[in-house]
Amino acid sequence: MTEADAPEGEPKAPIDFYFDFSSPYGYLAAQKIDEMADLYDREVDWKPILLGVIFKTTGAQPLLDIPIKGPYARRDMERMARMMGVPITMPEVMPFPSIPAARAVYWVKDRDPEQAVVLIKALYDEAFGKGGDIRDAEAVVRIAGSVGIDNAALTAALGEAAVKERLKTEIEAAMHAGVCGSPFFIVDGEPFWGVDRLDHIERWLATGGW
Amino acid sequence: MTEADAPEGEPKAPIDFYFDFSSPYGYLAAQKIDEMADLYDREVDWKPILLGVIFKTTGAQPLLDIPIKGPYARRDMERMARMMGVPITMPEVMPFPSIPAARAVYWVKDRDPEQAVVLIKALYDEAFGKGGDIRDAEAVVRIAGSVGIDNAALTAALGEAAVKERLKTEIEAAMHAGVCGSPFFIVDGEPFWGVDRLDHIERWLATGGW
Repeated sequence: MTEADAPEGEPKAPIDFYFDFSSPYGYLAAQKIDEMADLYDREVDWKPILLGVIFKTTGAQPLLDIPIKGPYARRDMERMARMMGVPITMPEVMPFPSIPAARAVYWVKDRDPEQAVVLIKALYDEAFGKGGDIRDAEAVVRIAGSVGIDNAALTAALGEAAVKERLKTEIEAAMHAGVCGSPFFIVDGEPFWGVDRLDHIERWLATGGW
Repeated sequence: MTEADAPEGEPKAPIDFYFDFSSPYGYLAAQKIDEMADLYDREVDWKPILLGVIFKTTGAQPLLDIPIKGPYARRDMERMARMMGVPITMPEVMPFPSIPAARAVYWVKDRDPEQAVVLIKALYDEAFGKGGDIRDAEAVVRIAGSVGIDNAALTAALGEAAVKERLKTEIEAAMHAGVCGSPFFIVDGEPFWGVDRLDHIERWLATGGW
């Protein structure tokens, strides 16, 4: 359904926003997506994924590790961040494992979706705003605590099979929906890959597609 | 050297434009690069490459063959073409070998650089404007003939070791310059990868960088 044919008064579908916490381009998109969604009266459904799992299917390698492409990508990320007016500091280890961060988000999201977004922004800010380390469960729990999430309950949850399964299911659903990278967006069924597609998304939201 | 510090009256460096004839995004860029270069008083140095050779170093696979990513890319290419107002028709075989096309261009370029650009545009138009087949030397020679290039001389040239070596040397130089995909641009030493970086290039040309 496009904006043009949505019945008046019926809430529009949210923008599905898929990202890996280890993805600098995902971080950049996360700084801009709310503002764009607001402009077009949309919600954002924030969905952390693990590129490592998706790359097993697509055969991709971590971008920054690839000869020739890696050095280019680092330059492009930093240039794009400056163009977007977003401060970025690369963590020392790139890419980094983001399993605890992603699991924590879904556990919080199932209890309080708004707080999950607060947690996502705090985690991304630590990783790419400050160039910090969010790899371990301990770091994730500490940051969650700083935004008011119960440390003990989250620590216990991160060891639970159901919480592990929740993330796995989300990633499988993402791949089924065609998600092949980070950031990835689905707007009214239309897929967009890359922070460099934000202008396409904006035009899609404004016009209902072309 | 940036536009800002170029001495007045001294000609500005050309935009190096690298592309594979088999690249739909390269085709799209080829429809727009002249207009942008003209706006900023630049020439374009058109440099065909072979992604197959570069992919041996970067480990990449042909985009359209990759699970999940391939179907997305096809959709993105067609959507981007519509957004840019450029007609595109995919050839039946994708990606296709583009060795004879690339070799022919350098042979013509060494004799008449302007005619080489005419040939490039005719080849891209046949491949992605009409969805035609430019894989074989015979097809390349026929298209070259249609823009006034000597068929017999080109046919002979395409078998020469020096002509083969010329392309090989160009691709090695491109990789040395950091070229990892198609289209790829170098503007005053600054690399840009992707038709989705045309807006960055335009801003770079206008401002001298950021």
